[in-house]
Order: sequence, then C-alpha cells, then structure tokens
Amino acid sequence: MGEGKYESRKHVEMPPSKPFSNSLQSSLKETFFPDDPFRRFRNQPISRKIVLGLQYFVPVLEWAPRYSFDFFKSDLLAGITIASLAVPQDSSFVPPLVYAMLGSSKDVAVGPVAVGSLLIASMLGKEVSPIDNPKLYVDLVFTATFFAGVFEAALGFLRLGFIVDYLSHATIIGFMGGAATVVCLQQLKGILGLVHFTHSTDLLSVTRSIFTQTRQWRWESGVLGCCFLFFLVLTRYMSKRKASFFWINAMAPLASVILGSILVYFTHAEQHGVQVIGHLKKGLNPVSGSELAFGSPHMGLAIKTGIITGIIVLAEGIAVGRSFAMFKNYHIDGNKEMIAFGVMNIAGSFTSCYLTSGTFSRTAVNYNAGCKSAVSNIVMATAVMITLLFLMPLFHYTPLVVLSSIIMAAMLGLIDYNGAIHLWNVDKFDFVICMSAYVGVVFGSVEIGLVIAVVISLLRVLLFLTRPRTLLLGKVPGSMAYRSTEQYPEANNVPGILILRIESPIYFTNSNYLRERIWRWINEEEDKLKDSSATELQYVVLDLSAVGSVDTSGISMLDEVEKSTSRRGIKLVLVNPGSEVMRKLGKSGFTERIGRECMYLTVGDAVDGISFVLHSHKSKAVEAEDVNINNIV
Amino acid sequence: MGEGKYESRKHVEMPPSKPFSNSLQSSLKETFFPDDPFRRFRNQPISRKIVLGLQYFVPVLEWAPRYSFDFFKSDLLAGITIASLAVPQDSSFVPPLVYAMLGSSKDVAVGPVAVGSLLIASMLGKEVSPIDNPKLYVDLVFTATFFAGVFEAALGFLRLGFIVDYLSHATIIGFMGGAATVVCLQQLKGILGLVHFTHSTDLLSVTRSIFTQTRQWRWESGVLGCCFLFFLVLTRYMSKRKASFFWINAMAPLASVILGSILVYFTHAEQHGVQVIGHLKKGLNPVSGSELAFGSPHMGLAIKTGIITGIIVLAEGIAVGRSFAMFKNYHIDGNKEMIAFGVMNIAGSFTSCYLTSGTFSRTAVNYNAGCKSAVSNIVMATAVMITLLFLMPLFHYTPLVVLSSIIMAAMLGLIDYNGAIHLWNVDKFDFVICMSAYVGVVFGSVEIGLVIAVVISLLRVLLFLTRPRTLLLGKVPGSMAYRSTEQYPEANNVPGILILRIESPIYFTNSNYLRERIWRWINEEEDKLKDSSATELQYVVLDLSAVGSVDTSGISMLDEVEKSTSRRGIKLVLVNPGSEVMRKLGKSGFTERIGRECMYLTVGDAVDGISFVLHSHKSKAVEAEDVNINNIV
Repeated sequence: MGEGKYESRKHVEMPPSKPFSNSLQSSLKETFFPDDPFRRFRNQPISRKIVLGLQYFVPVLEWAPRYSFDFFKSDLLAGITIASLAVPQDSSFVPPLVYAMLGSSKDVAVGPVAVGSLLIASMLGKEVSPIDNPKLYVDLVFTATFFAGVFEAALGFLRLGFIVDYLSHATIIGFMGGAATVVCLQQLKGILGLVHFTHSTDLLSVTRSIFTQTRQWRWESGVLGCCFLFFLVLTRYMSKRKASFFWINAMAPLASVILGSILVYFTHAEQHGVQVIGHLKKGLNPVSGSELAFGSPHMGLAIKTGIITGIIVLAEGIAVGRSFAMFKNYHIDGNKEMIAFGVMNIAGSFTSCYLTSGTFSRTAVNYNAGCKSAVSNIVMATAVMITLLFLMPLFHYTPLVVLSSIIMAAMLGLIDYNGAIHLWNVDKFDFVICMSAYVGVVFGSVEIGLVIAVVISLLRVLLFLTRPRTLLLGKVPGSMAYRSTEQYPEANNVPGILILRIESPIYFTNSNYLRERIWRWINEEEDKLKDSSATELQYVVLDLSAVGSVDTSGISMLDEVEKSTSRRGIKLVLVNPGSEVMRKLGKSGFTERIGRECMYLTVGDAVDGISFVLHSHKSKAVEAEDVNINNIV
Repeated sequence: MGEGKYESRKHVEMPPSKPFSNSLQSSLKETFFPDDPFRRFRNQPISRKIVLGLQYFVPVLEWAPRYSFDFFKSDLLAGITIASLAVPQDSSFVPPLVYAMLGSSKDVAVGPVAVGSLLIASMLGKEVSPIDNPKLYVDLVFTATFFAGVFEAALGFLRLGFIVDYLSHATIIGFMGGAATVVCLQQLKGILGLVHFTHSTDLLSVTRSIFTQTRQWRWESGVLGCCFLFFLVLTRYMSKRKASFFWINAMAPLASVILGSILVYFTHAEQHGVQVIGHLKKGLNPVSGSELAFGSPHMGLAIKTGIITGIIVLAEGIAVGRSFAMFKNYHIDGNKEMIAFGVMNIAGSFTSCYLTSGTFSRTAVNYNAGCKSAVSNIVMATAVMITLLFLMPLFHYTPLVVLSSIIMAAMLGLIDYNGAIHLWNVDKFDFVICMSAYVGVVFGSVEIGLVIAVVISLLRVLLFLTRPRTLLLGKVPGSMAYRSTEQYPEANNVPGILILRIESPIYFTNSNYLRERIWRWINEEEDKLKDSSATELQYVVLDLSAVGSVDTSGISMLDEVEKSTSRRGIKLVLVNPGSEVMRKLGKSGFTERIGRECMYLTVGDAVDGISFVLHSHKSKAVEAEDVNINNIV
C-alpha cells in the first residue's frame, strides 16, 4: 500500500530542451513584436499583403473606408474650433496633415509646444545669435527640427514604442490634472488682458506674473472673459444632463469666437482694453528644404538640439495622446505614434515649420468639441490655410479673451478628482505616483513631472523585486490546496514541516534578502516549536510556483540555503519550479545534488511524500534506532 | 449529488483587512530592516542591550573575543605583506585602524584608490591651483574627504546598504576579471622598469604607454621581475597541490621583498636600471582638523567633490569587499560597510589622509597572503607607522619590480574563466552582464564597468516585468494539478476552456502587453477550435497564483479583458489571487462585478465548477432552450 502511495506522488519534470537560437528568437519576438503584426499577413495573396502592409504603416488607409458623414460633421466642427486657436499661434499646416495620415490617436491636435520652442531657442542661441545672424539661425532651427523628426521616427522603427506603457494610469491622471491646472492659470493672461507674461510654465512664475501686474488688469477684458467662460461651462453642464444637447456644447466654442468678433467689431472694444488678434502676416509657409544647414559648422549643435528637444516634445505628445485615449478607452500604438511624430517633423522641416507635437490645450479643446478622428487635424490645417490666404480680416477683431475662455473651459473637465480618490482607495503607492506627477507638473514643468512619476513608478517595481513577499502556507480545510495562512487564517500548519512560498522571481536584487528571510522563518518556527516542545523542524518546503524566473545569483542563494539547512539537519524540498527555473537548476547541477525526488509537483504531493518518509522512518526506527534520516530520503 | 459536489468546491477568500498604518509599518520594516537587527535585543536586560548595541555598530567587539592566535599569525603575515606595498604608496595609518574596528569584510585592505585621487585633483584643480595656492588646495582636499566620509556614513545610517545587492554574481565575476586584467598590465610598468606611465586605467592607454616606450624597457628589471613572478606562481601552485604547503605561499611575497632588497643592496642593482623605493619623507601624518576649510568661498566645490568622489570610491570599495566575500563564501553587511568607509574618511580628514577606500590590488595581495580578519589592516597600519618612524632605511633598497611581481601574481588567480563558462551554460543573460562588466572595466574604467553591468542587470529585471511569460495550462495525468503544457507536454487541455497563467506581477509596465497577449491566446485557441470544429470556447480561466502584486493599471487591464471577453460571449474566471491582489480587486469593485463565485481556489476547482455549470446547462437546456449561460454562473 505504501508503495502504491509513492507511485501516485508526482515529481517535477525537466522541460524538453530548446536550442538557444530558438528561445532567443522567440523572446526577441515577444519583446519587440508583442502585437504580432505579421499574423494578418499569413496565408494571404501578395496583393493583399501589400494592401495590409500599407494599412499598417499608414493607418488612415485602414479607418478611412469606415469613415462616415456623421463623424465628419463632428470633426469639421472640432477642426474649425481648434483652427480658431491655431490662427494667432502658428501657421504650420503640413504637420497636421501628416499626422492625420500616420497617427493612431483620434484626439491629438498637432501644433508647436511651448517647451520645444523655448528649448530650441536657448540651445541654439548659445552659439548663433538670432539678431546678428537671423538667416543662419532660422536654417539651424529647421535643421534641428529635421533631426528631431529623424530621431523620433527611428525610435518607432526600432520598435521602442513600448516605452509608452511606462506612463502608467496613475502618472497620466496626475499629469493631466497638473497640466490642466497650469494651462488654466496661464489663460488668466488673456482673461485679464495682460500684455507682458512669463514664459515659464510653473505655478510660482505664473502667479507671480499675474499678481505683480494688478495695475495692468483690464476690467473690460475680465468681464467679457467671465461671461464667455460662464456660457461655455453652462453649455457643457447642459449637455451632460441631456445627451441630445451634445451639439450645443460642441458648437459653443465656435459660436463664442464668432459672437466675440462681432461684438468687438461693433463696440470697438479693442480700443477699451480688449486685446484682439489684429494683423497677421498673410501667406503660406514657403518650402525650406534647400535651407537645411547640412555641412554647416554648427551641424553638431543642430543634431544635439534636435535629439534632445525631439525626445522631450515626443514624450509630451505621447503623454497627451495616451491621456485622451485613456479617457475614451481606446489604445494608441506607441510605435506608430513615434513614426507619425517623426515623419511630421521631417516634413515640417522642409516647409518652414519648426518642431511640432501633440499640444495639450489644443487637444483638450478638440476633445471637448467632440472630435471623432484625426480628420479634425485636416480640417484645422485647411481652415488655417484658407484663413491665411483669404480670410485674415475676419479674424482681425477676434478677442484673445474668448480664446482664453475656450481653453480654460476645456481644462476644467480634465482634473480628475474622482480618479485620484479611487487611486487612494485602491493603491496608496499609485496615489503617491499620481500626486508626484501633479506636483512636478505644477511646480516644475511637464517634463519634470513625467520624469519624477516614471522614476517613482519604476522604483516601486524594483522595490517589489528587492523585497518580495514570502508566505507561510497551511492546508486549507476541505481542499487539497495549501495557501497563505495570512489570507486563509483557518489553514493548518503541518507539524515538523515549514512550508514557504516565494512571491517573485529570484534575482540578484533579492537573493540576499530571501536568504536572510528564509532563515528568519526557520528561526521563528524553531523558537515556536521550542516553546511548545512539539516535534522538531525536519523539513522546509519551498513553493516556487510564483518564481517565474531566476538568475545565477538566485541559484547560488538556493544552493546556500540547501547547504546551511542540511548542516542543521533540516531537509530542503522544492515544489513546482517552472520550466525556466527547472532548466537552470538542472544546468547548474543543483537538481542532481538534492535529487529529483525532492522536487514535487504540488505542495500536497510534497507533504504526502514527506509524511510517508517520516512514517517509514518511525517504523524502521523501532527496528534499528541508528538510521539517519538523511539516508532515507 | 450535484449539490454536494458544489459544496466541496472552494472559492477565494478576501483576506482580513489591515489598517493602512500597520501595512505601511511592516513594509518599511521589511525594506530597511530585513536583517531584523532588533531581534537579538528582545527580552534582554538593559546592560546586555547596551553590549549588543555596541557590538552591532562596532563589529570588532563581536568577533574579537573569538579571535585566536592562529588567526593572528595569518593576519600578521598578510599585514606585513600589504605594508610592503603600502610604504611607497602612502602613509595613512588612521583609516585602516578605523576600518578594522567597523568593517564587516575580512579581506578588504584599505588605502587610497587611483580614481579617487585623480577625480579630486581634477575637480578641485579647476578652481584652485595646487601650485599657486598649495595651502588652500590641500585644505580643500581634506575638506572634500571629510564630506565624502559624511555622505558615505549617511548612506549607511539611512539603511541604503541594500544597494550592495545590486552588484550581482555575474557583475562581480566580470568586474574582478576586468580589474585583474588591467592591474596586471599596469604592473608591467614596474616589471619593465618604466619611469613615465599613463594615469589612465584602460587597456588602450596602458598598452600604448608600454609599447611606445620600448626603448626605455630595462632588461635587468625585466629578468628580475620574471624570476620573482615565477617563484611566486610556483609557490602558489605547490600550495594548491598540498594543503600543508599553504604557509609557503603565504610567506612567499614577504620573502621576495626581503630577498629582493638584500639582492639590490649587495649588487647595487639600483645603478643598473632596477628602480628602488629610495628616500621617503620620514614622520607621521600631522593632525589636520583645524585645517578643514569650513566657511571658505570654495566650500560648495569641496562638498560637491566630496559627494561625487565619495560615492565612486565607495562603490569600488564595496565591490572589492563583496567580491572577496563571494570567493570565501561569507556575506558583508552593506550598511556597516558604508558606515565604516564613511567614519574612516572622516577620521582620515582630521589626520592629513585623503580619500581612502578598499583597494583592489592590495586586497588581492592580502587575500593571497592568507589574511583571516580585518586585523591585517591593523598590522599594516602599525608596520607602516613603525617603518616611517624608524625603519625607513631598510626599505631604501626594496626594488619596485618585486612589488609589481607580488601584485601581478595575486591578480592571476582572480580571473575566473570557469565562473564565466558556468554563467554561459546556466544563464546567457548573466553571461552578457559579466562580459559587459569585463569589457567596461578593461576598456573604460572600474566605474564605467560597474555602471554598465548594473544598468544591464536592471534592464533585464525590467524586461521580465515588461514582457512576462503567459503559459497555457493543462491537466497533468495522474495528478490533480494543472501545469504548463510546454513543461509537461503530456498535460491535457480541457475542451471549451482556455486556462492561462500569468507569471509575474501585473504592473503598468506589462498591463498593455498582457491585454494583447491574452487576446492572442484567445484568438489562437478559437482558430484551433474552428479548424477542428469542436466545441466553442466558452471560458477563459486566468491563474493568478504567480501574480504577487498588482497596481491600478493592472486592475484596469483585468477589467478591460473581462468586458471584452464577455462581449464575445466568453466568461472570465480567476484562480487563486493572492491577498494583495484580492484586496485591490475588492476595493476597485471588480470582485463585486464578476462575482465571488467566479474566483476559485485552484484551477482544478475552477474546471470542476465550470463543468458543473456546463453540464447543468446542457440538462436544463433540454428543458428550456432559452436559458442564458451567463445567468447560471
């Protein structure tokens, strides 16, 4: 009977060996092509393959056939709304067109971002003066933009888009809240009709800029701004109450622009402290390809500037895209985004546009106006172009205060208090990450906030691997399973056997800790047994089910634990090492040393096996008392 | 009967809730006090507590009582051997004494390290010229040393010693091999009797320095060096063959020094190209406490220099200590090492010693000469002091070539080919880490090598968390367990149920990947079922046993997977979420939404439960065909 019982116990199997090249290939594939982009190409005729390939690289080809007139109505409205913001800011219309073809976000509105412009100016300005040598300076700006684009696109082609995932849920909530707060405050410039304003984006500079100029505040502008803000907030409130009012909310910003312009035209308010867009240079961006300063002595500087500013505005653009995708519950493809931003800047550098990316405020207004796809970018580009060519006079009287109110209203919906509270309830660490992103963005800058939050997120992950949990297991009554006695307080210990479970891969980061922690468990268990004067501790069972991976430091650790326990007369038994762990234990000679019969499939099997040995030991001990327990197992 | 079967199935329990402050406290304790230093203080009288506390902070008090005369013989020999290296190099004898009291390594020999000296000189030299203003310059060197010490000790008091663990097994093998290679090559300076030599430590600079001076090579020096090297290698070879010959190996370096000095004295070889130590300034280091330049205008520079050089030499010293501890199979306490190095430098700055740390070559000679404890440092300090005061003439004729041979011979044992081959066999990634440490040290510097290796090690860890494995499970025949079909090819699928296992915590780093990967599994399974026209896929079972932790991004992922599977008519079932995962699933409302009855204790229970539902569905379907499967579960 004892024999039969032994038979039914299952031991761990050594997985079938794989050639190194195979496992390398499959892990490279999982790392860089987790979305399995080749799947759809399989078993297709060559013509279909070409179409699919084009669709992969130019997403517009994929979604355009499904694009409907209803979508277009929304995109038209959103596009014209963001065009009214774009007209006074910049005149680049090529980048949005490129993004609409290649981008994978439905909400991102493209334009120059403050930090990119400031950074390019400060980096290039150190070597070339924009006043003494304007031609060279401008050429270098386009060259830097070109290299920024090349670098961004290269990241995408190298399939490094997964870096996008490092902006966690919590980071994004903090980032959006912070950016919305700062952008909101910045709009006070327009609302209060201020002329001079700081270029910094942090809270302190902005508030200082506002409150040191209380004498320059213009009440006319303020009153107008508050009226429009009230109108915009009201329409949003109404549209939330009743879904059919959605159009009112979507139309409101554009209506405000038109209303404001008419108002100013008839009341001549521009002469009473209400700033208007006024005169802008007519005409389109000229082609600038021949002006790229390749071979100039400042080439190195242009490349350096391009790479640094490129990566910074890319991070901001991707954070913006990911944020609004999270709001609408769809996903962006990091690789495609990088390629889209890159190609957009390369194209921009040939058409006199400097560095562009996804801008937070414009995207928020776009989202708020109900955009459905990247077509709103095309509408914006077209509207800007037509305006620059023919309609400039129409915008002459548009009051800046209205544009500020539109941006401010769009921001108010983006501070996600409930999201932050949810984080606090579910995961305190995520709340800390969210708050650090918020504080970093508000008191530092968008980049500082993002970097702080990502670094803290990564530290949390490393902390998990540096101090993994170890659990004491017991048998759950009414089941064959052994589970943590902390989670299942009714689970029973098995006398003489200490069952431990390691909850993470065993790497160099934690192998020293785990060695000490296992010894602490053993010491505590022995103290407990000493007090109760029960049976001695004879076995330590290590459940490796949750150990997904191990490195050589980890194997040394297991080796040391085995040696030191057996020196103390305690036998080590392993349970359920996975295929990678098993393979490495085999290759390092550990399996051979402790014997495959000490490696069980389940904790239950291990306890059965040990009880069997202990039992047969006892009965044999009656016959011959000098049998050593280690010889039996 | 069906009812009874339902009863025996166990579901997952929600762990008892813990107040936030408790869990925070316990995780802080595990993070910073994993060695549980307070354990030994429990239930002790106050006097004993004081003794234990002193022993904790001053390790010498702990091991001194157990120190034996046999140990002292070994330490005496090793100490005098390293003193012969120290005499021509420096005259600091306070730091080794301090380290012997506080350090936790048995092998580290203390002295100035090349990189520290060079770095201090280059950083301070930018602002203060050592030629124009020698007094201020020297004062600033001591001040920088002081702050380096303060910073190092602070790291230890903040319990950041666990950073030591980040130097993995593989890193250390590569680091030691690389350092041994470079130090070996550097000794060619002494062996070939060269006068001018590069200060760089990389392979290219050193070989260039050697081979551009072929005309300065001195054959007398070379012959002498080769003879001593042969003698030293021979004695080591002999001592390895026979354990009782150990003393011959340990004595050999010192014997070489004496023999070499006598030889030079009688042959006047110093006049024939054999360099000797020659005249050294007599006397001890004066007290320099009053010379620390607090309040000087260069204070900021001194602090900055101190912190940067302090951390760099600390990293080197700790890597050295850890390497030799690994060789002898004991462990050093990172916190104690940091405090020891820190206090040693603070004390040094008061006694005219500049930045010291554990030096690689001296430690290797110490180890090779058979040191047993830090007492060899005390011997070295005493021997250096006595020599400086009285015995200077004895060292006048010591040929430098002998010292070079001693260091070279000690290096040859440290390149661990077999270790590297073992890494290649067991873990390819660790081999890459080892090689990058080696290449970094050899072609760059010790610091570059360490940084590259640690960064690659951390990237590997992050890669594991970015692309975790997901496994397809099947039932192992003859057992109740469900295991990976890759490891157990005989494991059977259950028709209509896809059982997946996630092998890592679910964090923001992998939640997007996992979502896509799970969908790929589902699609592949559906394709397979379509081909075989068997039953439809009705259930996806996610085994969360190995998911030790989850963050809010991970919970959103599970949420999305649940929503999209149920949209396709597939039901999601979870198995064995651990206490942290269960708690967060509960707080986020996920548990409530999918129902606790969809969370099973084991995969077996889940399959039983599902089969029961499927079966009763079938039989009920005969009665009323319009019953929806989702209503039953």
